[in-house]
Amino acid sequence: MTNAIQSMLNPASVAIIGASPDANKLNGRPFHFMRRDGYAGRLYPVNPRYEEIDGVRCYPDIDSLPEAPDMAIVAVSAARTVETVTALGKKGVPVAVIFSSGFGEMGPEGKALETELLETARAHGIRICGPNNLGLINGFEHVTATFSQYADTPPQPGPVAFASQSGAFGTGITSMARSRGIGFGYFVNTGNQIDISLMEVLEVALEDDRITVAAAYLEGLSDADALIRLADKAMAMGKPLIVAKVGRKGAGARAAASHTGSLAGEDEVFDGIARQHGIIRARNEEHMLDLVAAFIGTDAAKGRGIGILTQSGGAGALMADRAEELGYEVPLPSDETKSKLAEVIPAFGALGNPVDITGQFLAEPKILKDSVAHLLDDPAIDVAVVWLQLMHGYSDLLVDVFRDIRSRVTKPFVVCWIEPPERARLALTEMGICVISATERAVEAAGGLIDLGEARERCQNRPAFVATDLTQPESTRPVAAVEAHALLTAGGVPLVSCALAATPEEAAKTAETVGYPVALKIESPDIQHKFDVGGVALGLADADAVQTAAEQMLAQVSGTAPDAQIDGFLLQQMAPTATEMVIGMRRDPVFGPVVMVGLGGVLIEVLKDVAFARAPLSEADALLMLDRLRGRAMLDGVRGQSAVDRVAVARALVAVGEFALANPQVQELDLNPVFAGADGVVAVDWLMMAEAKEQG
Amino acid sequence: MTNAIQSMLNPASVAIIGASPDANKLNGRPFHFMRRDGYAGRLYPVNPRYEEIDGVRCYPDIDSLPEAPDMAIVAVSAARTVETVTALGKKGVPVAVIFSSGFGEMGPEGKALETELLETARAHGIRICGPNNLGLINGFEHVTATFSQYADTPPQPGPVAFASQSGAFGTGITSMARSRGIGFGYFVNTGNQIDISLMEVLEVALEDDRITVAAAYLEGLSDADALIRLADKAMAMGKPLIVAKVGRKGAGARAAASHTGSLAGEDEVFDGIARQHGIIRARNEEHMLDLVAAFIGTDAAKGRGIGILTQSGGAGALMADRAEELGYEVPLPSDETKSKLAEVIPAFGALGNPVDITGQFLAEPKILKDSVAHLLDDPAIDVAVVWLQLMHGYSDLLVDVFRDIRSRVTKPFVVCWIEPPERARLALTEMGICVISATERAVEAAGGLIDLGEARERCQNRPAFVATDLTQPESTRPVAAVEAHALLTAGGVPLVSCALAATPEEAAKTAETVGYPVALKIESPDIQHKFDVGGVALGLADADAVQTAAEQMLAQVSGTAPDAQIDGFLLQQMAPTATEMVIGMRRDPVFGPVVMVGLGGVLIEVLKDVAFARAPLSEADALLMLDRLRGRAMLDGVRGQSAVDRVAVARALVAVGEFALANPQVQELDLNPVFAGADGVVAVDWLMMAEAKEQG
Repeated sequence: MTNAIQSMLNPASVAIIGASPDANKLNGRPFHFMRRDGYAGRLYPVNPRYEEIDGVRCYPDIDSLPEAPDMAIVAVSAARTVETVTALGKKGVPVAVIFSSGFGEMGPEGKALETELLETARAHGIRICGPNNLGLINGFEHVTATFSQYADTPPQPGPVAFASQSGAFGTGITSMARSRGIGFGYFVNTGNQIDISLMEVLEVALEDDRITVAAAYLEGLSDADALIRLADKAMAMGKPLIVAKVGRKGAGARAAASHTGSLAGEDEVFDGIARQHGIIRARNEEHMLDLVAAFIGTDAAKGRGIGILTQSGGAGALMADRAEELGYEVPLPSDETKSKLAEVIPAFGALGNPVDITGQFLAEPKILKDSVAHLLDDPAIDVAVVWLQLMHGYSDLLVDVFRDIRSRVTKPFVVCWIEPPERARLALTEMGICVISATERAVEAAGGLIDLGEARERCQNRPAFVATDLTQPESTRPVAAVEAHALLTAGGVPLVSCALAATPEEAAKTAETVGYPVALKIESPDIQHKFDVGGVALGLADADAVQTAAEQMLAQVSGTAPDAQIDGFLLQQMAPTATEMVIGMRRDPVFGPVVMVGLGGVLIEVLKDVAFARAPLSEADALLMLDRLRGRAMLDGVRGQSAVDRVAVARALVAVGEFALANPQVQELDLNPVFAGADGVVAVDWLMMAEAKEQG
Repeated sequence: MTNAIQSMLNPASVAIIGASPDANKLNGRPFHFMRRDGYAGRLYPVNPRYEEIDGVRCYPDIDSLPEAPDMAIVAVSAARTVETVTALGKKGVPVAVIFSSGFGEMGPEGKALETELLETARAHGIRICGPNNLGLINGFEHVTATFSQYADTPPQPGPVAFASQSGAFGTGITSMARSRGIGFGYFVNTGNQIDISLMEVLEVALEDDRITVAAAYLEGLSDADALIRLADKAMAMGKPLIVAKVGRKGAGARAAASHTGSLAGEDEVFDGIARQHGIIRARNEEHMLDLVAAFIGTDAAKGRGIGILTQSGGAGALMADRAEELGYEVPLPSDETKSKLAEVIPAFGALGNPVDITGQFLAEPKILKDSVAHLLDDPAIDVAVVWLQLMHGYSDLLVDVFRDIRSRVTKPFVVCWIEPPERARLALTEMGICVISATERAVEAAGGLIDLGEARERCQNRPAFVATDLTQPESTRPVAAVEAHALLTAGGVPLVSCALAATPEEAAKTAETVGYPVALKIESPDIQHKFDVGGVALGLADADAVQTAAEQMLAQVSGTAPDAQIDGFLLQQMAPTATEMVIGMRRDPVFGPVVMVGLGGVLIEVLKDVAFARAPLSEADALLMLDRLRGRAMLDGVRGQSAVDRVAVARALVAVGEFALANPQVQELDLNPVFAGADGVVAVDWLMMAEAKEQG
């Protein structure tokens, strides 16, 4: 169906159903805009009330069109959309962009109309963008097929493809971009998104060689797989994908869900998966445009070191603060770099990081040129931020200076220019130099270049994407401990050794094979919380102790859980105490098989300090999960614990991911606690839930 | 010395030492600017090389001036500043603003020159602003006594007093403010700040009735008391004080320190004290100006509920996200509010929070007017954010709409307008309506109004400020447990009861008076970590157990710590286990007596999750400290613990603060652990360090 989207994005002919000659009306604007902008394709207004519009023949109905146009804009009332789509389908039009509102956003009746519309479209082999959208723009080919206010001024194309679920916010974002001199080659609003999704649109737009960056504004996410495919494709093409997604918190998620009717899924899970697949997430519209500005003309950074060069010590300190707050590094330059800087910087400057070059560079531009080059030559510096302000009398001089710097350096840099002369800002942006006009935001943009470089590195050997069945089973059952142990061990998930014994006597014998000291646990499909019923004994040192404990346990459990079916005694090796972690897996209704890791105790219970990735995950993905934990300092060893072998934990996470894919019947897995130490990692308790199949 | 600062901010006459006729030169700019802007006072250029400058008589030297001007600008070389200040002092000039650079920022020699300059000034009774500053502006009286690029265009005065340690950044900030239509009545750059501090300047500026908001950009803070006095004064006057302070992190602090040579102090301590005294902290220059924009014309909010009204569901969700992320509330409107909204909002809008009023309000402005009024009428809503974008054809209409809303509502609101028509933005700003052009930042501005309201509430019964001696004693000594116990108990700090016994036999008897079960601890000035030497026994149930444990302890400690002086046995009541907290006090070299609270365990050890306030603190201050803990959910009761009595904890913190003021000899106090539960709070271990005085 890609062809329909290609048709939509770059149509050789466009019909406008319900066209009006009034350029101020929703149904008059696209015709007016496309004529104004010089759209070179064939335009077919359709409206029985007009013979012609602005000198162009207007057709009374779809049937009478001289050809099946590549795309149709539908600007009729909601009630008439079904018949319109039927006629378009019969005519052979591959895609309809439906402006009409009065659908899902209106409640159940509108929702029913959406279903009817979609069924009609499917029946006639036509795809739908919308309804309730404000159209799309292909700035290169002047397809201004929209009624967005953004098009009140002719759009300037550029290397960015932007798709937005929100029309109004999308209009705001494109307009902000224009003010910054950033051109959007494509701007598509997918509206209620009953058929064509934002992800599909961007997949096709990315294939355009003129596009180097994709950006998306997402409200809901009903098809996580499509997003992951898009991300993997963008990564493979070397084109950054920036996503802003709302619904981070309760009220926002509630608002997004009520607004779009789509399920966004848990934000922490989305965040983990986005990061895993190299999506650069934007917090808001400004952050999105800052990242766009950084990515369109600047290479990704190859490391975490930010070099700060400033004419204000105060601004330098603020940038250093922000860089460290976000986890980037602000390394001191080497002695060699310092002595090179000392040769060019005035004595009242500062040679550390930030480097304060003072205002003297206006008199001697070489100060600025050389110091940026020297700083970026330093092996510890991977990206620079250069801060300046105003300088309205030196606009051209400074543009020349930055052009010169650009030609001299190979590492990326971002210009932070407070209240810049408009001319200089646009000239630099035109050159592909990123200009940000706020101090912390410039650091965040440089950080984006670091994140992008790391994502590229990490995604080099990404395991192939595995699409998954999102249907949830009707019911699940716990899997017996020994059975679960065998499955997990076969899958390479590290667990303490264990064995099942039927009687206290057998338990005493079996303990020998497990190895002392052992833990003894009652095994029953009916008992979830063994400890609460007296079903756990720890640290048993010999056969006598095991037998005695088992006998006592049986007696106690027959009192506390008289109806439970007892399958015997589980004997487990006692693992040496280490840092407590939790590893989990679940099949998320939005995201599919998801692996989770957290640190045990209050960190997970009180701070909900966990990280997610989707199966399959690479070792690099798993290490990233650990880096995302707020309490990650625990892994370096605190309170006398030795440092945790992070690679061993990462491998366990990878194994859990592979296990999830290999065992589709397993719905949920909870390894808690997992003991992680210098010598590796081992789960000492596990709960596995599998699909409960009807007995055959 | 306030008079000198008044003279500086509003001089009836100004001398410019080293004046030049060249309006492009540092030493020519202030004269040029003040003439251009219509400064009505007397201007005296001083330079032996000129007879007159631009028709104004130029004097050959300071002696020949016809009067002692209220203020002198010094624009001579660093080497000549001392003689210049001497001459100014002799002439009777109260204050000199010294532009000259080549001082502390140049290293030790420059530092020495600063000292000489300051001594000279003190000897001649003249105060100094700077050196190495770019001057000041009083926009009301056209005192454009600066060479800042900001003054390239005549400054527009307004209700804001802004002082900055950084000249370049200060220039950037004032210029950004101008672009937004925000006028600064005062802009003062204090530069190297060897004498007049930013805090003193703002104290005086606040007395001007035309000023309603103060803002400061701080790099270092050598005089925390001055900041607190300023904050208390601003609060008493009902004028918000916004402070941006760099040095939040290592690299930023390093940069700030090297740049200004002043000690900033630990950022977490600063943050706690700023919040305690009602300072609204800005993260960066944009945030500062957003807060300024909110505070100049809008009342503080009286509660935490943010109502969001939008024409874009997506933007609404983003705002709701941000509000909750920052800890504000986004309450659903009442049924009554909803039915009132339903009467005005189109059916395809949304009635929750966010309220989506759709784009229909352009055709029917009443939709916007009424819905803002209805939303703000809801008792759960304390401040509204109204989001819109572009609407370049409706500029005047929308200005009228917001004027109308303003006249109808009593609660505050913020307008978030993406890519607004410049004219509308300036018109609303002129009216004192806060317009922010970025979605999340608008929420942060509304949040600022909430923070300000809460700060005012909290500071109503602020304990009187107590200035403190910051000199640190040469050495400190641990205070014996029983002595410390007596002091703390007398001060109302809740500790478990305890008693000292000399021998094992006496211990057994004394335990009775303490109450079983007891804890037994060895008491020795030489043993800090009692547990490590076998000096702790817990949960002793009767006299026999106590005597046996004491005998064993004595034997063991004589082995593990043979040289320790043993003062006996400490008997302590065993407190029931509860949520573990830590309370501390120290005398900070920058901030004075500081009280700390944290949650025990990994939260404090790994996440450094602590909060600070300065003594004396109110109960409200102490409750705020608890609210600032990231792990505060622990206080609500987790893992089967009951909820903590927050007021009891707060009272203990207040008591520790009072104790610190009443006992200046106590340098440090560590209550760890403190058990906090539903029934109150009690410290079960304490370590007190006091000044070690020479034996008399």
